[in-house]
Amino acid sequence: MPQLNTPKQERTVEPISVGELADAYTHIRRFTESLAAPLETEDYVVQSMPDVSPTRWHLAHTTWFLETFVLGDGAPGYKPFDPAFTELFNSYYNAVGQQFPRDRRGLLSRPTVREVFAYRKHVDDHMSEWLAGDGPGMAPEKLPIVELGLHHEQQHQELILTDIKHVFSCNPLHPIYRPGATARDGVSQPVAPIEWIHHDEGVRRIGYVGGGFSHDNEHPAHDELVHDFDIANRLITNGEYLQFMAGGGYERSELWLSDGWATVRDQGRRAPLYWVERDGAWHEFTLSGLRPLDPTEPVCHVSYYEADAYARFFGVYLPRENAWETAAADVPLEGRFAEDGHFHPRPAPRTGATGPVQMFGDLWEWTCSPYVAYPGYRPQPGALGEYNGKFMVNQMTLRGGSCATPLTHIRRTYRNFFPPNARWQFTGIRLAR
Amino acid sequence: MPQLNTPKQERTVEPISVGELADAYTHIRRFTESLAAPLETEDYVVQSMPDVSPTRWHLAHTTWFLETFVLGDGAPGYKPFDPAFTELFNSYYNAVGQQFPRDRRGLLSRPTVREVFAYRKHVDDHMSEWLAGDGPGMAPEKLPIVELGLHHEQQHQELILTDIKHVFSCNPLHPIYRPGATARDGVSQPVAPIEWIHHDEGVRRIGYVGGGFSHDNEHPAHDELVHDFDIANRLITNGEYLQFMAGGGYERSELWLSDGWATVRDQGRRAPLYWVERDGAWHEFTLSGLRPLDPTEPVCHVSYYEADAYARFFGVYLPRENAWETAAADVPLEGRFAEDGHFHPRPAPRTGATGPVQMFGDLWEWTCSPYVAYPGYRPQPGALGEYNGKFMVNQMTLRGGSCATPLTHIRRTYRNFFPPNARWQFTGIRLAR
Amino acid sequence: MPQLNTPKQERTVEPISVGELADAYTHIRRFTESLAAPLETEDYVVQSMPDVSPTRWHLAHTTWFLETFVLGDGAPGYKPFDPAFTELFNSYYNAVGQQFPRDRRGLLSRPTVREVFAYRKHVDDHMSEWLAGDGPGMAPEKLPIVELGLHHEQQHQELILTDIKHVFSCNPLHPIYRPGATARDGVSQPVAPIEWIHHDEGVRRIGYVGGGFSHDNEHPAHDELVHDFDIANRLITNGEYLQFMAGGGYERSELWLSDGWATVRDQGRRAPLYWVERDGAWHEFTLSGLRPLDPTEPVCHVSYYEADAYARFFGVYLPRENAWETAAADVPLEGRFAEDGHFHPRPAPRTGATGPVQMFGDLWEWTCSPYVAYPGYRPQPGALGEYNGKFMVNQMTLRGGSCATPLTHIRRTYRNFFPPNARWQFTGIRLAR
Amino acid sequence: MPQLNTPKQERTVEPISVGELADAYTHIRRFTESLAAPLETEDYVVQSMPDVSPTRWHLAHTTWFLETFVLGDGAPGYKPFDPAFTELFNSYYNAVGQQFPRDRRGLLSRPTVREVFAYRKHVDDHMSEWLAGDGPGMAPEKLPIVELGLHHEQQHQELILTDIKHVFSCNPLHPIYRPGATARDGVSQPVAPIEWIHHDEGVRRIGYVGGGFSHDNEHPAHDELVHDFDIANRLITNGEYLQFMAGGGYERSELWLSDGWATVRDQGRRAPLYWVERDGAWHEFTLSGLRPLDPTEPVCHVSYYEADAYARFFGVYLPRENAWETAAADVPLEGRFAEDGHFHPRPAPRTGATGPVQMFGDLWEWTCSPYVAYPGYRPQPGALGEYNGKFMVNQMTLRGGSCATPLTHIRRTYRNFFPPNARWQFTGIRLAR
Repeated sequence: MPQLNTPKQERTVEPISVGELADAYTHIRRFTESLAAPLETEDYVVQSMPDVSPTRWHLAHTTWFLETFVLGDGAPGYKPFDPAFTELFNSYYNAVGQQFPRDRRGLLSRPTVREVFAYRKHVDDHMSEWLAGDGPGMAPEKLPIVELGLHHEQQHQELILTDIKHVFSCNPLHPIYRPGATARDGVSQPVAPIEWIHHDEGVRRIGYVGGGFSHDNEHPAHDELVHDFDIANRLITNGEYLQFMAGGGYERSELWLSDGWATVRDQGRRAPLYWVERDGAWHEFTLSGLRPLDPTEPVCHVSYYEADAYARFFGVYLPRENAWETAAADVPLEGRFAEDGHFHPRPAPRTGATGPVQMFGDLWEWTCSPYVAYPGYRPQPGALGEYNGKFMVNQMTLRGGSCATPLTHIRRTYRNFFPPNARWQFTGIRLAR
Repeated sequence: MPQLNTPKQERTVEPISVGELADAYTHIRRFTESLAAPLETEDYVVQSMPDVSPTRWHLAHTTWFLETFVLGDGAPGYKPFDPAFTELFNSYYNAVGQQFPRDRRGLLSRPTVREVFAYRKHVDDHMSEWLAGDGPGMAPEKLPIVELGLHHEQQHQELILTDIKHVFSCNPLHPIYRPGATARDGVSQPVAPIEWIHHDEGVRRIGYVGGGFSHDNEHPAHDELVHDFDIANRLITNGEYLQFMAGGGYERSELWLSDGWATVRDQGRRAPLYWVERDGAWHEFTLSGLRPLDPTEPVCHVSYYEADAYARFFGVYLPRENAWETAAADVPLEGRFAEDGHFHPRPAPRTGATGPVQMFGDLWEWTCSPYVAYPGYRPQPGALGEYNGKFMVNQMTLRGGSCATPLTHIRRTYRNFFPPNARWQFTGIRLAR
Repeated sequence: MPQLNTPKQERTVEPISVGELADAYTHIRRFTESLAAPLETEDYVVQSMPDVSPTRWHLAHTTWFLETFVLGDGAPGYKPFDPAFTELFNSYYNAVGQQFPRDRRGLLSRPTVREVFAYRKHVDDHMSEWLAGDGPGMAPEKLPIVELGLHHEQQHQELILTDIKHVFSCNPLHPIYRPGATARDGVSQPVAPIEWIHHDEGVRRIGYVGGGFSHDNEHPAHDELVHDFDIANRLITNGEYLQFMAGGGYERSELWLSDGWATVRDQGRRAPLYWVERDGAWHEFTLSGLRPLDPTEPVCHVSYYEADAYARFFGVYLPRENAWETAAADVPLEGRFAEDGHFHPRPAPRTGATGPVQMFGDLWEWTCSPYVAYPGYRPQPGALGEYNGKFMVNQMTLRGGSCATPLTHIRRTYRNFFPPNARWQFTGIRLAR
Repeated sequence: MPQLNTPKQERTVEPISVGELADAYTHIRRFTESLAAPLETEDYVVQSMPDVSPTRWHLAHTTWFLETFVLGDGAPGYKPFDPAFTELFNSYYNAVGQQFPRDRRGLLSRPTVREVFAYRKHVDDHMSEWLAGDGPGMAPEKLPIVELGLHHEQQHQELILTDIKHVFSCNPLHPIYRPGATARDGVSQPVAPIEWIHHDEGVRRIGYVGGGFSHDNEHPAHDELVHDFDIANRLITNGEYLQFMAGGGYERSELWLSDGWATVRDQGRRAPLYWVERDGAWHEFTLSGLRPLDPTEPVCHVSYYEADAYARFFGVYLPRENAWETAAADVPLEGRFAEDGHFHPRPAPRTGATGPVQMFGDLWEWTCSPYVAYPGYRPQPGALGEYNGKFMVNQMTLRGGSCATPLTHIRRTYRNFFPPNARWQFTGIRLAR
């Protein structure tokens, strides 16, 4: 299986070769399409909130990225599939021109799904030709952009899943994306109590080191003084979160950040997103439909505010970003990822292992660290400089990937970020103290 | 051709027979589907503003109406196609239960278009069977409801057209619903000046009299003292409206109702809806795409506020509802209607006729009369009482039908109504003084 | 006592003389100030919602009206008190220039109350001089504007009272404007059942006829065919309204206009404005403070939506405007008015009288008629044309005046108007059928 | 002069004595009242935006703090001045009960200014008695709360100034708080170019150490690895900011954080708050009125977004919080403070000094560090725990104090915080690289 990143996650890896890149290109582009395959044509169109984009838009935007930043000026004689797409499928690159307003993406019924797939094929054909031909030799500076474009595509693979989950959740018919067990077998094994893993204070190297791909926001690698900390060996479960709720978690203002309490009150939040009470029992909407809540699974679709309130309830904290990275240093890159096709986190395994579990995959983990630049950070020059840097305010950092993240996309140093009230991503809670 | 209403527009007609009703049923239901036929699957899904409903919703809602109000308790043993549709496709009948929120209809990708057509077929099969069998004999009280359901369907035929026009207008690709001349032939004949037709004061019978179908809001017929008036023999043209604009129409607050001026200012209105300036020339988005403005066609997609300001600009008025009905009494029920398949108004014919033209079809005409109950008005008992009466506030009455109204739906006494800021219907201006 | 209008309410009166006008000027301007007298300086500043203006603003705006429309170009050599006030205290006269935004009037702490009173004195001194001197002779066309200015001032007298009532109602300290009985004596006499007064159908003269002052919206007098009707002899009481509430009035959607039901639901309305439940008993905030609800007093501070729903609950209607005017034709102009200083309606008297009671004063009565122009209506030319005409949409007509209306301001033909969701005026319910 | 903090800013100071505290109490409470003295009664009432509180509210809230947290349970037999004030003047202490909604403070005209001063006197009398009598002996745990209450009062002294500045800025009459030069003398001396002061990387002690007062958010003192940096020796001037504007600062999206650009576009920002263009020249609204912009003064009333965009424009950064604290370690606590009575920053002095100027006083300086807890931070237990901790999200840290900050309130380790779009505080720009 062609792989984009896995063998390169260790710090000694070499940059990807052109051949590997071409393989990865095919693999990743096809995987995107496989994620869209279960959908009906109508599903591709809907935008259920401003944060969500229609599936069709994801399919086209990732293609636009490659067309604009690689073929546009890297492939002599290339003709755009449709010049109007430049504005329609630009997300936020001001340097490239106007963007169709983000919150109106759901107003567009054209281009049709069929046309979007034709757009993809058009670009894929030219990209394959470019990669196999003179392209890399003539414009070697485009190779890192191709690689970035594939990682970009993987980010949108995750968004395709989280966005369609939100779309389906708004529908009283509870559509099912991936048929599966509508309820887990009733005999889920209880999860063992949390164990705390201690790390001593010390100066650590933070950020990406090595030859493989990484995002600009993981750079420059630098030293930080990491204070001593304990980190929980596993994620918080639904059962534990129910205790927080039973203890008045959503009614006790003193547990909440001020902005978080305002959100709880204004939006009437009283449970994680996608939790539904039916006949007195909590259910959870998943990509396999609505099903009874499993107390052993990790609690999912909580905002930073909820994660923080949960930690205060128990008198502990969320981990700092540098503590999380320290704790993850020697943990194998294993867990439930998008490639597994389940799109739902699984309970912590009962292992005899001494290290933490569920660090990678399953759920993104809120850290208590706002998303800021590392010391000496410089965004890429040009339009691609808008990729990460301009979001470095009002967001919190998350780590580790989720059950909707491709395994070949994640790194120990990978920094994800969302506003503290966001809940529609696969986000969970790991405690520190 | 089976007809629902035409022969019954004269006040002496008899009620429709069961056979005629069955014919009309088939005809009208098929006509709805013919209106949807040019659309791509994706087009059926989009809701471009709260007033607009997705095409799929119209197709299902009209079906729900018949299922709920006829088959539901009039056809023993009938099983609903899908019980969940009761809430999904209820528009505003509180008496029937909850409604899925109107402004969120665009969030639903399911049921799919295919399923909605299956729903239609299911109900049509049962309705045909019911009409052909014992139904009318066993439950004769349902026959007027079937007839109402067909008129209801015709109202949604018009909305399918006006709503998809709005959806397409939001798309920079300017999709075309009905391929046609993208520009009219350049030699449109100038329109003759307005002639004024005088009517003396007198007590007139207002409202519907006769045996055919009519809406409850046309009842009871009653006498009104209609003051003397002159009415224009034709609609205002784009060319005349351009004079209003050139004369500072959108900048002169004194021409506007206070609420109208606030709308102009807050929304930055400076031309009718769907007018687009391109390279210094006005164009108009139509169901046949974007094309240069034809100065001889009637001005279209203006709100009541604009119609009223236009009239003030020339020191005249819009007609009162009872004056309009008086003026229309002897005018033949002719004009451009939905059956013509053009979905755009045409210029006033240069005729030697002495009576008014364009009274029926082409464009709905704003009257200066708020939509209120006639003296002694009683809504129907039960859920169907919510059909007309509960909208009798904050709306203005319009008369005459449009190029998107089925000819067999209109009557001289027909009362349409929209809020004074609405513009997405086919609405135009006829002056009075 | 100098009087502005009372002797002129009969249709045979003569226009006011200059001497009478000068007397009325003094009387009315002083009455305004007497209404402000109970307030603390702080009370003059607050704007509790966009519809409400600070008392200071009313005091200045009425003065601005006289300064702008009389002295401005009618008194040679007059110097404005402060040119900046032109914008600050213009309400909505676009023809006179910019206006400080209505919803931001509460942001202004300057000019101070003291300065506003100095402004009033400045204008009053010049106006008195003008009236006593050559003014009326040199510029006789200004005399009707002075008279209009005084009626305008009387309208703002009522607004001073209704606006400060709203301001005080937002304050948990429940300030008292006019010390009075905090509770009525417990032995209020029950109110007699409603009697219905019948009027036959007929053509009636509607609108103002006579030589005294009247507003342009009462013109032209014209004939209308008034259908036969019964009208209730008194207003609906709090006790009767409680029955409506006990009967599920605020929960039964079928009783409400569609827009009214949306208002009830969105704003959580479940009782008239200013009703407060305390320890299981309804209280009412009044200008004399919070006190237990008196079931014999007329229900007050209801919107058109509530009045209409109440009428439907009992299967009757609200009167049409022309029916109300017909019924009021021979009723004496008596009732509780602002001059009485109570600012609260009183129970219907138990009289042996055969005619209706509470027609004038006590509470404005919602009619079911939207506020529209009479046939042939022409607004005044110039800026004063903005006085009435530009509000003729989205409003309902009210009749009869209230306990906050000056007696000398009201007429049988007087047309007041407010949007159907407004509740902060002294508005009540009289039924018709 | 009694002093609260100054002698205690060095890390060796002793806690304040009861006698010093009593002196400070009198001094600080009187200083608050001296800040209110120039106001008219009307000025005390207005709330010009949700962030702003009426002066009257500040006067009462600071008093409520002392009444609630000291006298309430620390002075046996104390009777609250008015129990209703508990809710009215609680800002955000959920643990103490309900709060009157923040954005509705401007709706309250009562209690009057006179009553609020009576409230202050009542509490001051009891506090003085308590401090001079048995209080400190009986309830020594209240002494730190008194001290906190005085620092809290000093924070509101600054807010009184910034809030009334905003209120006055909304008034077209441009009221003057403190009469002063309406324009500076035209011959302001040019400011010398920025010099950069270098600091090497190293582990530094960050946070408060010593015996004097400090806020919980300055604790615990801890080591941080501070990377090497250069810091500018002075603040950015109006003249330099004009270059940014002339260089398209407000039009070039690539200079802005994504949220910042959205703010610029949605609010139409094109200059700092309070800048007004008059006849082609920039003016600035100050507490001494509107006056021509002085290019040598520091640019003021910029948001974090603007400060950050300015830095990017020149390819540099804003300082990290720990860099700022490192750079300030040896700088004398001097500058323009509230005690000076100017309430406007002054140009950088032309000194031969090698260290930075304007570090303290003049303007708060945006750092690029989000406001987060120090490692091991614990909020105070009880209601006072709501003081600082619950705001640790969505805010940026500012350092150094301003011309509206009392000198005796500031510390080298003092952490102020505001959301990144806030502009109504005295905030400026110091660069780092």
